[in-house]
Amino acid sequence: MPVVPPHFDASVRPGCVLGVDPGLNRTGYAILERSIRNPVLREGGVIRSTQGLSLAERVLELGRGLREVIDEFKPQVLAIEQVFSTTKFPKTAILMAHARGALLYAAADAGIPVVHYTPTQVKRLLTGSGKASKEQIQHAIRQELALDKVLEPNDVADAFAVALCHYHSARAVILGE
Amino acid sequence: MPVVPPHFDASVRPGCVLGVDPGLNRTGYAILERSIRNPVLREGGVIRSTQGLSLAERVLELGRGLREVIDEFKPQVLAIEQVFSTTKFPKTAILMAHARGALLYAAADAGIPVVHYTPTQVKRLLTGSGKASKEQIQHAIRQELALDKVLEPNDVADAFAVALCHYHSARAVILGE
Repeated sequence: MPVVPPHFDASVRPGCVLGVDPGLNRTGYAILERSIRNPVLREGGVIRSTQGLSLAERVLELGRGLREVIDEFKPQVLAIEQVFSTTKFPKTAILMAHARGALLYAAADAGIPVVHYTPTQVKRLLTGSGKASKEQIQHAIRQELALDKVLEPNDVADAFAVALCHYHSARAVILGE
Repeated sequence: MPVVPPHFDASVRPGCVLGVDPGLNRTGYAILERSIRNPVLREGGVIRSTQGLSLAERVLELGRGLREVIDEFKPQVLAIEQVFSTTKFPKTAILMAHARGALLYAAADAGIPVVHYTPTQVKRLLTGSGKASKEQIQHAIRQELALDKVLEPNDVADAFAVALCHYHSARAVILGE
């Protein structure tokens, strides 16, 4: 059964979903559109920040880049992976949270609702198992989007994974599953 | 001797300094202006986010609030405490980093340069010791700003502390100390 997060807003239509895999150096994004059968991959890409610039300038690049994507595709919702405090890579997590704060700011400033999914929710929805491997996730994305090869780079694939997770969660609510 | 961070930009004039103590629930800010003698406290306050709103809406409130302060006082620089990955309060650090990302975005979007100071730099510059207590910091702020009582609340006092740290670091560079 699809996992619907408790803060999911049923008034959001899943017509166009923007999935985001946030990172300070590179932020992957994915645009999915609804069709009668499978969801359609509209665009996937990476928003980069310039190394050597200040942290403030870099998060500005990411936020403005996301805003451009939002203005072009006018998604009805942004789906993003929940970030967890990790004792394994605390510095990376802190930098990623800065990027995430700027991306959330840009989405909210554009009036786009944001839904968060845990990595376990994304894996479970795409493969049936919350402990699926990267390869299993890649395989599920390929099947869902009827692609003839694996999606690359990784951050774009991860952005599609969270977009697909929202796509199916939202459909499940609408269909009353 | 004042501590000058390696990324300090000598072209930034210390005329009006905006100090910020970031937090998701409350972000303290402080406006300091240069005078011939002591720096002058122009305004100190708190930007609050609404509990119960989504994380994206809350960081938007903080970023927009900061933008209002910037538009009103037109500071030449924003001074903010460096955030560190802490294993003590990892969840708090992650939420604070989200707030910080949105605040940095808002400052960079307004064209304001941002300088970061470590807590040790702030303490050392205000008291001479990198291990000063909260009370010693408060005492130093009182003296610097010629106040007849302790500054409250705490986040406003911390915002003044980092603003003062920048004020003196910048003056030290200009005076060639």
